[in-house]
Amino acid sequence: MIADKNNRDARNLRQEIREGSFRGPTAGLCPGMTQANVVIVPASYAFHFLLYCQRNPKPCPVLEVLEEGCYEPKFLAQGADIRTDCPRYRIFRPDGVEERYDIVDLWQPDWVTFLLGCSFTFESALLEHGIPVRHVELQRNVPMFITNRATEPAGPFRGPLVVTMRPIPASLVSLAARVTAAYPRVHGAPIHVGHPELLGIEDLQRPDFGDPVPIRTGEVPVFWACGVTPQEALLSAKLPVAVTHAPGHMFVSDRQDRFFAHL
Amino acid sequence: MIADKNNRDARNLRQEIREGSFRGPTAGLCPGMTQANVVIVPASYAFHFLLYCQRNPKPCPVLEVLEEGCYEPKFLAQGADIRTDCPRYRIFRPDGVEERYDIVDLWQPDWVTFLLGCSFTFESALLEHGIPVRHVELQRNVPMFITNRATEPAGPFRGPLVVTMRPIPASLVSLAARVTAAYPRVHGAPIHVGHPELLGIEDLQRPDFGDPVPIRTGEVPVFWACGVTPQEALLSAKLPVAVTHAPGHMFVSDRQDRFFAHL
Repeated sequence: MIADKNNRDARNLRQEIREGSFRGPTAGLCPGMTQANVVIVPASYAFHFLLYCQRNPKPCPVLEVLEEGCYEPKFLAQGADIRTDCPRYRIFRPDGVEERYDIVDLWQPDWVTFLLGCSFTFESALLEHGIPVRHVELQRNVPMFITNRATEPAGPFRGPLVVTMRPIPASLVSLAARVTAAYPRVHGAPIHVGHPELLGIEDLQRPDFGDPVPIRTGEVPVFWACGVTPQEALLSAKLPVAVTHAPGHMFVSDRQDRFFAHL
Repeated sequence: MIADKNNRDARNLRQEIREGSFRGPTAGLCPGMTQANVVIVPASYAFHFLLYCQRNPKPCPVLEVLEEGCYEPKFLAQGADIRTDCPRYRIFRPDGVEERYDIVDLWQPDWVTFLLGCSFTFESALLEHGIPVRHVELQRNVPMFITNRATEPAGPFRGPLVVTMRPIPASLVSLAARVTAAYPRVHGAPIHVGHPELLGIEDLQRPDFGDPVPIRTGEVPVFWACGVTPQEALLSAKLPVAVTHAPGHMFVSDRQDRFFAHL
């Protein structure tokens, strides 16, 4: 374990979330701490979901998998509770998606929890290198878009790639690519730079999830793989039940982001 | 797919192996082509084996997982046959380990095949950078050692880390670390440099698998995580049946090693 001086902030935030006093998106919170996407599936689907992640490592970089029925992360945040510590959850059932603030009453002993890397993690590195992050500046959720690119299927899991978009000044796009490439376990380098229409994105001001952000003169829209991708795969898989965090409402861990830098 | 000018050599080698005219270790063969460790387990153990790999990415970097019952790789080598194309196999049963030249008669429809990266893959990169690879020079199998380090368990899979050892001139150790770090999916950077006793290795001239190689004056023993690690985990898991390649007798694929460089 590394000593994390920001631990207390992440713990405090999780405490606020658990008590219901914070329910917003987590972009920009606890700078330097690793944030994670949450996906929970019944054990009988765990192999194919893990295989889906292995086949799609850019959108689905696995940080930790909890033992069947276990809701306390061992590696990312001891003492946390995966059933209460995200600000908002989505429950996927064959007939639709429901949102909740916790999943304590729903929890089943055969559920397997996956924690996947989130690009919020590398935003402190971008800021440290002088690269602006518009949605953090404006205190909004990041804009997310469903693309026309298919992921590699595994068992019942298949669907389009989802991306986040950050407008980056043209002179800093190359640096942004290199800075984020150093964090492969939190989505790594961009998958696309400019020309949103080639990803099937019609209007950057109408994201599928999160909030729109302005793109200023001299900026280029840059796209990173997003951990909401498996939520699209859950929609098509139609499992009896599955749970995720709500887009942008992440699990904030006790691990520093630099722990996940490629060395 | 990238165009692989060395494809034909790998295909020819697999053909010779399939016909029984080549049965030796594959170190140094088909330079530049990715070699892979093979692990086959019944589907009911596939989740925990994949989780074991996810938790131990240095010794167990997953390159491809075949669909249940499928023995033709889709990504690493179309047209190959996983039941015949390794020079030698090991069959793990609760009462012991048996070696065979093919597994055609044993094959079961519920078997799931995992192909894991192998450090033979980065040896061409070492040679290109002027770093000698002793066992290739001497046309021997690489020396492999069972260490005193435990891997992270998953389900029934647990056991010690296995390493390969290459003697490297002191002036080139740093370069060797950096060159191999560029290939995280074939074991990446060394896990230990010098002082074999700290890994619990008593005699470098008595490897647990493969052949001993001389360490010359001014050279340092450098240790990389090895894809034989899961074979130790299979020994302790005592599945009804499981299959691997024999140490050093790898599956040689049609993918160029540079495809797996970190970019």
